[in-house]
Amino acid sequence: MPQGPVIAVGPKPDPEFDAAITRGGGVPGPLAEASGLVWTDSRAVPEGIPDAVTWVQLPFAGVENFVGSGLLEEYPKVVFTSAAGAYAPTVAEQALAMLLAGVRGLWHREHSWDYLPAAGRTGRLGGSTVAIIGAGGIGRALIPQLRALGAMVIAVNRSGDDVPDAVVIPASRIDEVWPQVDHVIVAAPSTPETRALIDAGVLARLKPHSWVINVARGSLIDTDALVAALRAGTIGGAGLDVTDPEPLPAGHPLWSIPTAIVTPHVANPPQHLRPALLERVEVNVRRFGNGLTPLAVIDSGRGY
Amino acid sequence: MPQGPVIAVGPKPDPEFDAAITRGGGVPGPLAEASGLVWTDSRAVPEGIPDAVTWVQLPFAGVENFVGSGLLEEYPKVVFTSAAGAYAPTVAEQALAMLLAGVRGLWHREHSWDYLPAAGRTGRLGGSTVAIIGAGGIGRALIPQLRALGAMVIAVNRSGDDVPDAVVIPASRIDEVWPQVDHVIVAAPSTPETRALIDAGVLARLKPHSWVINVARGSLIDTDALVAALRAGTIGGAGLDVTDPEPLPAGHPLWSIPTAIVTPHVANPPQHLRPALLERVEVNVRRFGNGLTPLAVIDSGRGY
Repeated sequence: MPQGPVIAVGPKPDPEFDAAITRGGGVPGPLAEASGLVWTDSRAVPEGIPDAVTWVQLPFAGVENFVGSGLLEEYPKVVFTSAAGAYAPTVAEQALAMLLAGVRGLWHREHSWDYLPAAGRTGRLGGSTVAIIGAGGIGRALIPQLRALGAMVIAVNRSGDDVPDAVVIPASRIDEVWPQVDHVIVAAPSTPETRALIDAGVLARLKPHSWVINVARGSLIDTDALVAALRAGTIGGAGLDVTDPEPLPAGHPLWSIPTAIVTPHVANPPQHLRPALLERVEVNVRRFGNGLTPLAVIDSGRGY
Repeated sequence: MPQGPVIAVGPKPDPEFDAAITRGGGVPGPLAEASGLVWTDSRAVPEGIPDAVTWVQLPFAGVENFVGSGLLEEYPKVVFTSAAGAYAPTVAEQALAMLLAGVRGLWHREHSWDYLPAAGRTGRLGGSTVAIIGAGGIGRALIPQLRALGAMVIAVNRSGDDVPDAVVIPASRIDEVWPQVDHVIVAAPSTPETRALIDAGVLARLKPHSWVINVARGSLIDTDALVAALRAGTIGGAGLDVTDPEPLPAGHPLWSIPTAIVTPHVANPPQHLRPALLERVEVNVRRFGNGLTPLAVIDSGRGY
C-alpha cells in the first residue's frame, strides 16, 4: 500500500487536523519531513517553510492578510491554497437571510401593526432580479437558493464565463448592471479594484426598494455613501455582515438606521468554520496525494 | 364558436375581474343570468344566490369566516372554491424569511458587535430539520425553498399521503414530530382541531435553538404559552405573521421580546393579493367552462 504524503500542521499541533489529514490519505508529521503544510492560524503568517514543502493550505477564504504580507512572493515555488468555497453555502445563506429580511419587512422595529403596510414596505423577492457581484463559491451557492424563490439572477464576474442559471455580465461592463436589477449582493473578493465598488454613483442608480447586501468585505462599499443613501431613503436598505470600519464601533450610524441590518461578520458562524475547514483539508490532502491541484489555489496577481 | 359561461362579479362591479373572466373564456354578466359567481369582498357573505349558480369563487385562502357563517350549508348544491394555493409561493417566502432571520441572528437589536457570538446565537439553517405543519399549497411551496438551503423537511398532513422531497408524518402521529426537528413552520388551516396546536406541551418538547414560524392563523398557537417559552428562553424564537389576538395590540409582550419577529399579516402583501386572485379567477373560469372541477373546492366538513 503506497504511503501518503507527510503533511504538517502549524503553528500548533491539532489532533482534529491530523485526523483530517489521515482521512485524506496523508500522514501527519513534523514540518521538517513534510511536503505539505496545513496552517490553522488566521493571524500569524507561516515562516521558515522548508524547501521540500510544495503546498500550503491557509485557513480562510479571504486571504488578503497573507497576500499582503508578501508570503506568496517569498515562496514562489509553493502552491498556496485558501479555503475559498468551503464556507460558501453558509455565507450564501446569510446573504439570502438578509435580503429576504429586508424585502419582507422584518427589519421594522415599530411596535405597531400598521407601520409596514402604511409605509408600503411589504415586498416580495420572487419575481425580482438580483445582481450577484462575484460569481465565486458564494455567488454560485446563492444562485439555486435565489432561483428556488423565483428570483432572476445577474452574475458579475471578471471572466465573463458562463455561470449556470444566471445571466453573466463581465465586470468590465458592470455599469450595465445597476439599471437592470432590484437588489445587489456583494460577494466579490477584496482587491484594490473592488475597493468602494458600491459608491455614491452606484447607489444613486439603484431603486427606492433596492436592498444592498454585503457578505464579502466591508471595503467593497463606501460606508459614508451608504449611510447617506439609507438616511435619504433613496434605496430600500442594506444588510451587512461585514463593515468598514470593522468591528462597527458603538454609536456608528449603521447601528441605529432601521433599514440597516447588521450582523458581526458571522456569515461563517464560528461553530461551522472548523468543520468546513477540516473537510476542505481532507479533500485537498487527497488531491495533493493523488497529484491533482488542490482546490482554491491563490493567484498572487489577483490577490485571492 | 361556443359561448362561455356567464359569470357574475359581486358584491360590486369590478372591471379587472370582468377582464379575468373574459381571459378565462367566460362572459361577465349579471347575477340573474349567471351560472358562476366571483365574490371579491372578504367581509360580506354572498346572499340570495340564484338556483342557476353552481359555482362560487371566494376571495381568500383562509375561508373560515365564510364557512362559519353557514354559507356552505345554505347552498348545498353550489361548489364553493377558495383561493387556496394562489398565494402559496409568496406566503412561503415570508415563512422562509422569518426562519432564516431567526436562525441567522437578524433579530438582534443590540448595538454591539459582540452580542450575537457571545450569546451563541449564530446558527445555520442548512443541515437542520424543519417540520412543516400542513402540506397544502404553502407547505409544498416551502419544500423546494428549504431543500435549496440544504435543510431536511418533515411534512405533517392529515392524509399521510406522500409529499415530494419530504418525509411525511400523518397528523394523527404528530407527537412523533417534535423530538425529531430543529424548527417548526405552521402552515395548516384554521379548524377546531388545529386550535392551539402549538401549546405549552409542544413548546416544551422543542429545542433551545428551535424557531417556531406561523404564517397560517394566530389561533394555531397558544399565545400565552409562546410568550412564556420566549421569556424563559426555552426555544430560540418565534416568527409570526399572524397572531392571536390580531391585530396585535400596542403594548403586547410579543412586540418587545427580542426573539419574537412580528409582521402584520403581510405574508400576502396587498399589492400581490389582487394579481394572484385575478390569475386564479381566470384559471377557474376556464376549468368551469370546460366542465372541470375548479381548483380549491371547499369541503364544509374539513372547514377549508
